[in-house]
Amino acid sequence: MTALPPPLHKLVQLLARLPGVGERSAIRLAFHILSHGDQYPRDLSGALEDVVDQLRLCDECHTLTEVTPCRACADPGRDARLLCVVESIQDLMAFERTGVFRGLYHVLHGVLSPLKGIGPDDLKLANLEARIQDRGVAEVIVATNPDVEGEATALFLSRRLAPLGVRVTRIATGVPMGGALEYVDQGTLARALDGRTEVA
Amino acid sequence: MTALPPPLHKLVQLLARLPGVGERSAIRLAFHILSHGDQYPRDLSGALEDVVDQLRLCDECHTLTEVTPCRACADPGRDARLLCVVESIQDLMAFERTGVFRGLYHVLHGVLSPLKGIGPDDLKLANLEARIQDRGVAEVIVATNPDVEGEATALFLSRRLAPLGVRVTRIATGVPMGGALEYVDQGTLARALDGRTEVA
Repeated sequence: MTALPPPLHKLVQLLARLPGVGERSAIRLAFHILSHGDQYPRDLSGALEDVVDQLRLCDECHTLTEVTPCRACADPGRDARLLCVVESIQDLMAFERTGVFRGLYHVLHGVLSPLKGIGPDDLKLANLEARIQDRGVAEVIVATNPDVEGEATALFLSRRLAPLGVRVTRIATGVPMGGALEYVDQGTLARALDGRTEVA
Repeated sequence: MTALPPPLHKLVQLLARLPGVGERSAIRLAFHILSHGDQYPRDLSGALEDVVDQLRLCDECHTLTEVTPCRACADPGRDARLLCVVESIQDLMAFERTGVFRGLYHVLHGVLSPLKGIGPDDLKLANLEARIQDRGVAEVIVATNPDVEGEATALFLSRRLAPLGVRVTRIATGVPMGGALEYVDQGTLARALDGRTEVA
């Protein structure tokens, strides 16, 4: 690359580490950041410092939070009998967006993956049983992704939690709402058939 | 959007102001930034502060630089008889990447655009004549974009610089190298015909 001034080169290199951002896009982003005066880059810099300084993982459910336990874990209005286990904080947020789930969450920060060398010790599982017992959880809904690793993790959890006598369920797999059947893959269609229910 | 912790919400809002980044992508970027420990966000924060603190526009050519005059303007090895006028620093960098131009640059930071209310006073033109005279420039190559505004700016510059007796030229418009003629637009083809040259 041509002689960018060193501070700009550094910024471009760091921006190029963002997902989907190559060197060309990083240069474009850097110039965009600089093109609106000093305030925007300073704000962005401050916001980056703030997330690092002020956010941590909740000791209970392992989501990002400013206080631990997080608001959801500390909310007496939430139904502690239901515990939804998700792979990531983004997945937790996806469920929260639906507005229909009022139970608690548990974020694994990953799924079991022998290929990637990710075993149970690499997931946030250490306090899972204790939470289930302390909070009187009656049902654990395993909401890992419907792929091989997510399915394996769900199976692993159902076996691991069996001694607790808690009900372990899995979110339904089937055709997505609004999807066109002709474009749905065979695996999903097969699952949708398997999981068919009575028309109410 | 669901209850993101406030510092994260702030970061997402700022990231969403980047070009091509919507709220969803901003959330993805924010989580990516946070997913590799504290070092990366801190480095990015520091790099943003550094570009604001350490970079300024060159008093001569108006490119981004740590020192003014910038390295190019101060380089005695460059041919001061040639001055290439560009719209943006990115365009300057594009020419530098070719490695064939060894003259000086002048960055306008925009082009004339009556529609957007951008007139000559909004461009970095104040010192252009002085530079041409002080540095003994013999030819001004107007390398604004080959669009309506770029063409109008080129015409404006050629008229404005006429009293100086300097040669004002325009970069060639034509079919791009490696391009397929059948996909080239009519305007470009017409220009390519107009600007035809003898086969050497």
